[in-house]
Amino acid sequence: MKNAHMKPMIRITRKVEFSAAHFYHNPRFSAEENRRIFGKCNNPHGHGHNYVLEVTIAGEPDPETGMVLDLKELKDILQREVVDRMDHRHLNYEVPELAGKIPTCENIASVIFELLEPRITQGKLYRVRLYESADLFADCTADGIGSNGKDAPGSIK
Amino acid sequence: MKNAHMKPMIRITRKVEFSAAHFYHNPRFSAEENRRIFGKCNNPHGHGHNYVLEVTIAGEPDPETGMVLDLKELKDILQREVVDRMDHRHLNYEVPELAGKIPTCENIASVIFELLEPRITQGKLYRVRLYESADLFADCTADGIGSNGKDAPGSIK
Amino acid sequence: MKNAHMKPMIRITRKVEFSAAHFYHNPRFSAEENRRIFGKCNNPHGHGHNYVLEVTIAGEPDPETGMVLDLKELKDILQREVVDRMDHRHLNYEVPELAGKIPTCENIASVIFELLEPRITQGKLYRVRLYESADLFADCTADGIGSNGKDAPGSIK
Amino acid sequence: MKNAHMKPMIRITRKVEFSAAHFYHNPRFSAEENRRIFGKCNNPHGHGHNYVLEVTIAGEPDPETGMVLDLKELKDILQREVVDRMDHRHLNYEVPELAGKIPTCENIASVIFELLEPRITQGKLYRVRLYESADLFADCTADGIGSNGKDAPGSIK
Amino acid sequence: MKNAHMKPMIRITRKVEFSAAHFYHNPRFSAEENRRIFGKCNNPHGHGHNYVLEVTIAGEPDPETGMVLDLKELKDILQREVVDRMDHRHLNYEVPELAGKIPTCENIASVIFELLEPRITQGKLYRVRLYESADLFADCTADGIGSNGKDAPGSIK
Amino acid sequence: MKNAHMKPMIRITRKVEFSAAHFYHNPRFSAEENRRIFGKCNNPHGHGHNYVLEVTIAGEPDPETGMVLDLKELKDILQREVVDRMDHRHLNYEVPELAGKIPTCENIASVIFELLEPRITQGKLYRVRLYESADLFADCTADGIGSNGKDAPGSIK
Repeated sequence: MKNAHMKPMIRITRKVEFSAAHFYHNPRFSAEENRRIFGKCNNPHGHGHNYVLEVTIAGEPDPETGMVLDLKELKDILQREVVDRMDHRHLNYEVPELAGKIPTCENIASVIFELLEPRITQGKLYRVRLYESADLFADCTADGIGSNGKDAPGSIK
Repeated sequence: MKNAHMKPMIRITRKVEFSAAHFYHNPRFSAEENRRIFGKCNNPHGHGHNYVLEVTIAGEPDPETGMVLDLKELKDILQREVVDRMDHRHLNYEVPELAGKIPTCENIASVIFELLEPRITQGKLYRVRLYESADLFADCTADGIGSNGKDAPGSIK
Repeated sequence: MKNAHMKPMIRITRKVEFSAAHFYHNPRFSAEENRRIFGKCNNPHGHGHNYVLEVTIAGEPDPETGMVLDLKELKDILQREVVDRMDHRHLNYEVPELAGKIPTCENIASVIFELLEPRITQGKLYRVRLYESADLFADCTADGIGSNGKDAPGSIK
Repeated sequence: MKNAHMKPMIRITRKVEFSAAHFYHNPRFSAEENRRIFGKCNNPHGHGHNYVLEVTIAGEPDPETGMVLDLKELKDILQREVVDRMDHRHLNYEVPELAGKIPTCENIASVIFELLEPRITQGKLYRVRLYESADLFADCTADGIGSNGKDAPGSIK
Repeated sequence: MKNAHMKPMIRITRKVEFSAAHFYHNPRFSAEENRRIFGKCNNPHGHGHNYVLEVTIAGEPDPETGMVLDLKELKDILQREVVDRMDHRHLNYEVPELAGKIPTCENIASVIFELLEPRITQGKLYRVRLYESADLFADCTADGIGSNGKDAPGSIK
Repeated sequence: MKNAHMKPMIRITRKVEFSAAHFYHNPRFSAEENRRIFGKCNNPHGHGHNYVLEVTIAGEPDPETGMVLDLKELKDILQREVVDRMDHRHLNYEVPELAGKIPTCENIASVIFELLEPRITQGKLYRVRLYESADLFADCTADGIGSNGKDAPGSIK
C-alpha cells in the first residue's frame, strides 16, 4: 500500500487586504545612491499600494470541527496584528516594527511573519505571502535554511 | 430588415496602472468634522493604492487598419498625461490639477477625463473608469446631463 | 469650446459579496418540465454560489467632500439590505422578497435593485450588477424601456 | 411615486473563452508601412491570445422561468457560432467572416456581433465585449449612431 | 557545474470549478455549541459557494509529447471524480465520501485528494488546492508529516 | 525558544506577460496519432495564448536595501531573456531553444528556467510558473529529484 505511514497535510490560507503608503530611503546612502538604487520609490512624498496578504497555517483538521484552526479567531488575529497596524497607515512613520528597515515587500512580509507566528496556537504558521501589486509579491516561510544550504531538521515546507 | 440605418458602435478600452498616496482633508472642516466625514482616510501621514485606469474611446474602426485609434499613440498619451503625472506620486502634493480638491476616486477620475479628452483626436473619449481597489471604482463619462435630468442633445452613452 | 453645456457625469460603484444556496423549481411545471428547463439547477437539495454584487450610484460629487455619496453610509445600506438578508442563506426559503419567484440571477438582481433604490438618497441608483459566477452576471438598471422600445423620457443610462 | 411608468431593464451576460492566432498585415500598405503601423503585430509568423468574450442580452425575464433567455441555448449558440469557428484557429486563415479584414479586437468583436445577432431570438443582443488581454478590450453595441452623432430612434444602450 | 545531478522538476496544474451547497453541524455538539463554533455556517437551510479546484501533478514531461500527463485524460478524471460528484450538489446530503464529516474546505480538499490519487497513473498527485472563495482556500498535499514533525522519507513537496 | 537557529526564508516573485502562437506536432507520429494525442492543438495553422510568467527568486534581503535582488535588474533580465525572445512570436518557428521540442506549457517553463538560472546572480532561481491560460499552468523548480524519489542533497523547495 502506497504511503501507508503518511496522512495528508492540510494548509489553510486566508486573505486580507490593507492600503498603505511608503517610500524607500536609506540614510546611509547619498541622495544620488538613493535615487539610483530605489528609483521612483525614493520620492519622499511617498506613494502607496493595496497590499494583499495571504496567511497560510499548516496542521491537521480537528475531527470534531473539520478545521485546522478557528477561522474567526484567525480573522481577529489578522485584524489586530496586521490590519489595525498597517491599514491606511504610512509604513515609514507609523509602524514601529518597520522602524530602521526599508519597507520593501520582502521586509514587510518578514515583519508580518514575526508578528503572526507567536499568535498562531492551533496549527503552525507556514507562509506569509504579501502582494504589493498583482505583478510583485514576497513569500516568507519558516524554511530555516542553514548556512550549508540544507534544510534545518524539523523544518516543513 | 432590422436596424438597416445603423452601424455597430465600437468602443476600445485600454488599461493602465499607477500607484499613488493620498489622504482626505478639507481645511474648511474642523478636525472633528474631517475625522467624522473621512474616517481613516483623514490620517495626514497618507496611505495609498494601486490605481487601475480603464480608458474607453468610441468610434468607427478605420477600414485600412481595423482600429478605432492607434493604440501605441493612446499608450503614449496615457503614459504622458496620467502615469508620468500620478505614478509613485502623492496626489495631495504633487498633482497640480488636483490642487484644492479632495483626491477621491470621483475627483481623480474627473481630472483624468479632462486631461485626456483634448488629447484624443481619433474617436471620442467615452469613459474613464478608475479603480481605487477591486471593491471601489468611479466612472466619468461625457453624459452631459442637463438640469432637467434629460440627456443633452448629441450625447452618447 | 466643445461640450460647453455639459458637465461630466460621475458614477461610483461599490462591490460586496455574499454566499447563498438556491435551486430552480416552478410548481406550475411538471417534474419533467422542471428538469428539462432548469437542468441540474432543479436539484431540490440546492446548490450555491459566491455572489458578487456591484452597486452603482450616479450623481455629482459634493464639492466639499469630493464624494457622490457617503461610502460608509452606502456600505451600511448594502450590509443591511443585502448581506444581512442573503448572506449564508437559502434564497428559496429565507428571503421573503424572492417568495414565488425563481431565484435566477436576473430576479435576484431585480429584487436587490428594488430594495436599494428607496434607500439611496444622495445620487441615484444607476445599476445593480450581480455575478452568480465569473461567467454569468445580470444587470438591472432603471432604463424604463416602454412597450415601443424607446427610452422613457428622463431615463439615464 | 418615482418612475411609475418604468420597469427595470435586465441584461444577462455570459462569458466564454477561446484561443487563437493572428497577425496584422494590410496588402495595400508597403512593408515599411505595415511595420510602422502594426509594430510587432505585423510579424507574419503570427502570435496569439486567450480571447475572453462577454455576450450581453437585454430583455425582460419570463415570469415562469425567471430568465431573459434559456442559458443552455445561449451556450449552444456561443459554442456553435464563436468557439467552434475561432477556438484553436488562426484568425487570418481560417475564419471566412474575417477575410479581407485586419483581425483587430474591434473587427473581431464586430464580426461576432453580426454572427450572434440573428441567432438571439429571446431578448435582444445588447453588447459583445471581447478581451484580447486583461489590458485591452473592444465593445460592439447596436448603438446605431447616425452621422449627426445623435442616437438613432429606438436604440437602446 | 552547479546542480549537475539534478533535472528540473515539473508540476502541471489544471483548474476546474463547481458550485455546491453546504452547512456545518456536528450532532455531538449542542445547538448552542454548533452556533458558537460554526457561526452563520450553522444555518441548517444551507448556503453555497463557487468552488475552484486546482489539481497539481508532478512528473517529468514525456519527451515525445512534452506532457507530464494527458490533459484530456486528466480533464475526464476531474469531471468524473469531482464535478459529476459535487457540482450542483448539496455536500451534506449527496456526497457519500463526505458522510459523517463537516464539509469544511479542509475536509473537502482531503476527500478530493483521496478520490484523485489512485486515478493519477502518469506522474504523481502533488497537491489539491480548493478555493471556497477568493479569500479562503485549503491545500492538501502528500507531505506525510510524521509524529516527530519531520518529513517522511521519500516525500516530495 | 522555537526555531532559534532559523531565519525566515524570503522569496520574491515578479510577473510578466507575453503573447505567442504555437501548435503541437511530433514528426515521429503519424498524422492520425498527432490528431489523437494533441487534438485541436495539432492544427498546423497554430493558435495562441496570453502567457503569464511568474519568476520566483529565493534569498535573504540585503540589510541595506531590503531587497533579495534589484528588481529593475530582474525586470531587464526577464525582458531580454523571455519577452524579447517569445513575445509576439510563433514558438514553433522563432525560438531556437524550443527547436525539436513540443512547445507545451511544461517544456516552455523548463526552457525559461534554463534561460534564467545562469542570469540570476543575487539569490537563487527558485521557481518558474507559466500560465498558458487561467486554467492551466506549469511550475518548473530546481527540486532535483533523484531516481529513488528522494530529494537531492542541498535542494530547496
